[in-house]
Amino acid sequence: MAAYAPPIEDIGFLLNDVFGFDAVMAGLPGYEEVTAELALTVLAEGGRFCAEVLEPLNRSGDEEGCRLTDGMVTTPKGFAEAYRAFAEAGWTGLSGDPAYGGQGLPRVVQILLDEMLSSANFSFGLFPGLTRGAVEAIGHHAGDALKEAYLPKMISGEWTGAMALTEAHAGTDLGLLKTRAEPLADGRYRITGGKIFISSGDHDFGGNIVHLVLARLPDAPAGVKGISLFLVPKFLPDPAGSGDQRNGFSVGALEHKMGIHAQPTCVMNYDGAIGFLVGEPGRGLNAMFTMMNAERLFVGIQGLGIGEIALQKAAAYAHERLQGRSADGTRGPVPILEHADVRRMLLTGRALTEGGRALAIWTALQMDIAARHPDPEAAKAADGFVALLTPVIKAALTDWGFAITVEAQQVFGGHGYIREWGMEQYVRDARIAQIYEGTNGVQAMDLAGRKLMMEGGELPRRFFALMRAEIEEAPSSLGELTRPVLAALADLEATTSALQEKAADVAEANAAAVDYLRLFALVALGWMWVRMAAAEAAGQDNGTKAQRKRKLAALFVARLLPQTAGLKAAVLSGARPLAVFQEDEI
Amino acid sequence: MAAYAPPIEDIGFLLNDVFGFDAVMAGLPGYEEVTAELALTVLAEGGRFCAEVLEPLNRSGDEEGCRLTDGMVTTPKGFAEAYRAFAEAGWTGLSGDPAYGGQGLPRVVQILLDEMLSSANFSFGLFPGLTRGAVEAIGHHAGDALKEAYLPKMISGEWTGAMALTEAHAGTDLGLLKTRAEPLADGRYRITGGKIFISSGDHDFGGNIVHLVLARLPDAPAGVKGISLFLVPKFLPDPAGSGDQRNGFSVGALEHKMGIHAQPTCVMNYDGAIGFLVGEPGRGLNAMFTMMNAERLFVGIQGLGIGEIALQKAAAYAHERLQGRSADGTRGPVPILEHADVRRMLLTGRALTEGGRALAIWTALQMDIAARHPDPEAAKAADGFVALLTPVIKAALTDWGFAITVEAQQVFGGHGYIREWGMEQYVRDARIAQIYEGTNGVQAMDLAGRKLMMEGGELPRRFFALMRAEIEEAPSSLGELTRPVLAALADLEATTSALQEKAADVAEANAAAVDYLRLFALVALGWMWVRMAAAEAAGQDNGTKAQRKRKLAALFVARLLPQTAGLKAAVLSGARPLAVFQEDEI
Repeated sequence: MAAYAPPIEDIGFLLNDVFGFDAVMAGLPGYEEVTAELALTVLAEGGRFCAEVLEPLNRSGDEEGCRLTDGMVTTPKGFAEAYRAFAEAGWTGLSGDPAYGGQGLPRVVQILLDEMLSSANFSFGLFPGLTRGAVEAIGHHAGDALKEAYLPKMISGEWTGAMALTEAHAGTDLGLLKTRAEPLADGRYRITGGKIFISSGDHDFGGNIVHLVLARLPDAPAGVKGISLFLVPKFLPDPAGSGDQRNGFSVGALEHKMGIHAQPTCVMNYDGAIGFLVGEPGRGLNAMFTMMNAERLFVGIQGLGIGEIALQKAAAYAHERLQGRSADGTRGPVPILEHADVRRMLLTGRALTEGGRALAIWTALQMDIAARHPDPEAAKAADGFVALLTPVIKAALTDWGFAITVEAQQVFGGHGYIREWGMEQYVRDARIAQIYEGTNGVQAMDLAGRKLMMEGGELPRRFFALMRAEIEEAPSSLGELTRPVLAALADLEATTSALQEKAADVAEANAAAVDYLRLFALVALGWMWVRMAAAEAAGQDNGTKAQRKRKLAALFVARLLPQTAGLKAAVLSGARPLAVFQEDEI
Repeated sequence: MAAYAPPIEDIGFLLNDVFGFDAVMAGLPGYEEVTAELALTVLAEGGRFCAEVLEPLNRSGDEEGCRLTDGMVTTPKGFAEAYRAFAEAGWTGLSGDPAYGGQGLPRVVQILLDEMLSSANFSFGLFPGLTRGAVEAIGHHAGDALKEAYLPKMISGEWTGAMALTEAHAGTDLGLLKTRAEPLADGRYRITGGKIFISSGDHDFGGNIVHLVLARLPDAPAGVKGISLFLVPKFLPDPAGSGDQRNGFSVGALEHKMGIHAQPTCVMNYDGAIGFLVGEPGRGLNAMFTMMNAERLFVGIQGLGIGEIALQKAAAYAHERLQGRSADGTRGPVPILEHADVRRMLLTGRALTEGGRALAIWTALQMDIAARHPDPEAAKAADGFVALLTPVIKAALTDWGFAITVEAQQVFGGHGYIREWGMEQYVRDARIAQIYEGTNGVQAMDLAGRKLMMEGGELPRRFFALMRAEIEEAPSSLGELTRPVLAALADLEATTSALQEKAADVAEANAAAVDYLRLFALVALGWMWVRMAAAEAAGQDNGTKAQRKRKLAALFVARLLPQTAGLKAAVLSGARPLAVFQEDEI
């Protein structure tokens, strides 16, 4: 099997030719010196680490899995060493705050490293991904003492982080959670309760493990407004230097999962563990939500990354596997890449992956603009786009990622179903990204029920106007691309207005949500494909692969964009066809 | 978790109210006494066996898997006993030839048992399924001596069967296979070669295991015309009674698979094993093809069955799991069944499953008519429909089955990803049905490239005319269903004509095939939903669930049928958007 090839060339095209990365960064204080050249150099190095160190551990990690012995978690062979090497090379601090030792690179560089991590070793990528999430929550909401005590070692990778939200009876509905926090006289808290599905809850990498735990104070009201956030470290650092004290929590069990076997997903028991309040009492969900955009973008990127590697493996196989005759019947057996249906599977995957990468980069750039732009209006405008696009990226890129792994597995025929070739692992691993960090149905509700009404309902219109303007800017030679994309955009606008009119009716938004998000995502991808085709047409150095992007754009418009018709009809059919069933009829 | 509930009520509705089963059977010699009442009694009994004996072994079978020790295969605990009980109760001979001890029931009853087997225990169902395939091949092509020696014990279930086609380098393209058959002076053959992916290749149920092996005679031409079929038993029966002789083949390894862990999928080594020619030399593929319709229908049914059970589990969970508030905000937490998006997942699954069951029954009835109708023209007409619908059933029902298991898993959120609830096993098991017995891409090529041109291209038109006539027969009160289905049928007809015009171009058919099959399947399902809604409207005893079928029909038309627009566009976009890529651009 060919090794993973980091998509540095495609990233270079996107940063330089499509998004004018250098010009964008030049306008963002603190990022002025971050050029595409620098980013590509860093990413090429990171990609090498992913290909050489992490990918070789991917299948063995799946086969070996994690073990819990006498309360201690053991990760698969090689993981601890790889994590130490990853941290020592500085990758854990890539986008971390320089005030605490981070390198302070922008979000867009971070997500491109995350994509490569997710390609090379999805389970491994969760360790730094979750640590970064914890770092961001602490950075935004904790007091200075906690920040000083925890951030430097988390950013350096010496310590890791975990998020402890879900309980057995409280998944999507966090308002139901029961874990308790009792205040102590010294300002600390005792945390008691059980959590499930806690990724990276424990491991054998060494160092502290910093749990962020949602729990209720004694006098807290029921529901989400009674939830607070606590920092609960595995070891309580002793400033006096007399040795760290083991905190009162333990791993009750490891979850037995469909995939991501190398990731220790823990059932956690907190038995009066010492915790520190992060942010204000009763504002725990709020503290989690401020980092949610970043986390959801990260999960979308996981879908992107695993689709990319599955496509690479399937394309390599299709070049080599000989079956059947050429279409004209004169040659055989031929590489299956010659068969149109195999091309269909690989190329529709490419259209979704390369389009998805563009959309993710655009969104990450908006996050960087929102965080740094000196003009508050520009920052706010970008922030709105991030809010709007985040659920789309999370759900669409993970849905596509899963679908792509399934199609890539199909390219292998029976060989795809056995472990030997590694394709079935991609399917099993990819599946989780559609579920965690808010199921894709929850993402769709966030888009259709909440985001559409932001800025008094103007937010989506502002985004559609931007798309329309950029599509119309494309050269007239791309008319065969721009016309159908503009038509689909008009459908999206009409569908959006129809949903906005019914926005007060939760059942209507809920019934339409998933199909609406898919429609939205396809139109946004059409916009990206127009931009990529236009950038390619304007470029000078496309070499032997001339117009590959334009061909993919045409493929997208011919074979994928027309799905918008069915999605539009499903959205407009409304809640009634679902609501008319009695409960005992389902 | 609720136990599996065999869908006897739905089957009764389909046989009695939709398909007039008794009247059809009355016209088929040998089946005159097979009434729906009899069929339902038999199926209820079979369903009880599936629910009480086989389903309880499903998860433990997955967890334990099969083992190969010193060349002997061990199946999971309970499987051998269950198989013996299954055979002793007569289920292995349900549709077997009475001349060899079978019960001679029609195909349609057989596939409904197969559906329940696939729901309760997908891995288990393959043992009798493959044995029946071998029985049919032997019954159609072997000489009387072989039939006498093998069929009675295979039909009684004392012995089992296996199909040995695939080799490592010869999957879809069987013309490449290399296994050799050398004739012996006594008319027997020595078979030498290696096969992979051999389901039920060995086990510990006791009795003989009868392999049907594709191999080449020494003077055979290259390609598919040089392939012959051989019966290669694990034990060579000794008519003199001095004890059976172990034949010269062995299990080289068990495949490590994504799913169906309780099914021993073997790498087989034939080392000069004694074999008996089945049918004529060089006609081996032909002998396999005569039973291919039945095998492909069986695999489609596996997709149906696993979708059905996944939906049952997800619906039960949705009734019990409390998360979130009611749409009007007044109650909470409520069963997630109240949320429109959960209803969407469950009900679109229902529309595909119940529609798919109807289409499978219709097709199986055509097989029975083709086999038994006294009027050769009627038999031939039915046989054409079977040829046309077989790839549709195989591919569409397995694609839907997989999609349904994924959506059913999604209903469980994170709980769907862990093994505990069993949902992830359904996803892993369902996946194989899209791959084996000819990948779904191969099915689509069979439809778009070959079946469309049968009867000089009249076959699809004859089928479309039948659908149109039956849709137009529906009462005018169903106009909201019939109009969109007729419009979609017109699209299918136009798309079909366009493909027929390009039929000489293999690349065109190949590029369009998968999308065309999906379009075809949705229109055929629309036809079935009109028939079901019409039958329900005409019925008298629909009790409390009045018009449930009509509601599902409306849901199908509102939310699923509109996908035909995107599929039509993809089909009509032709091969060029795929063909323009250089090999190094993919």
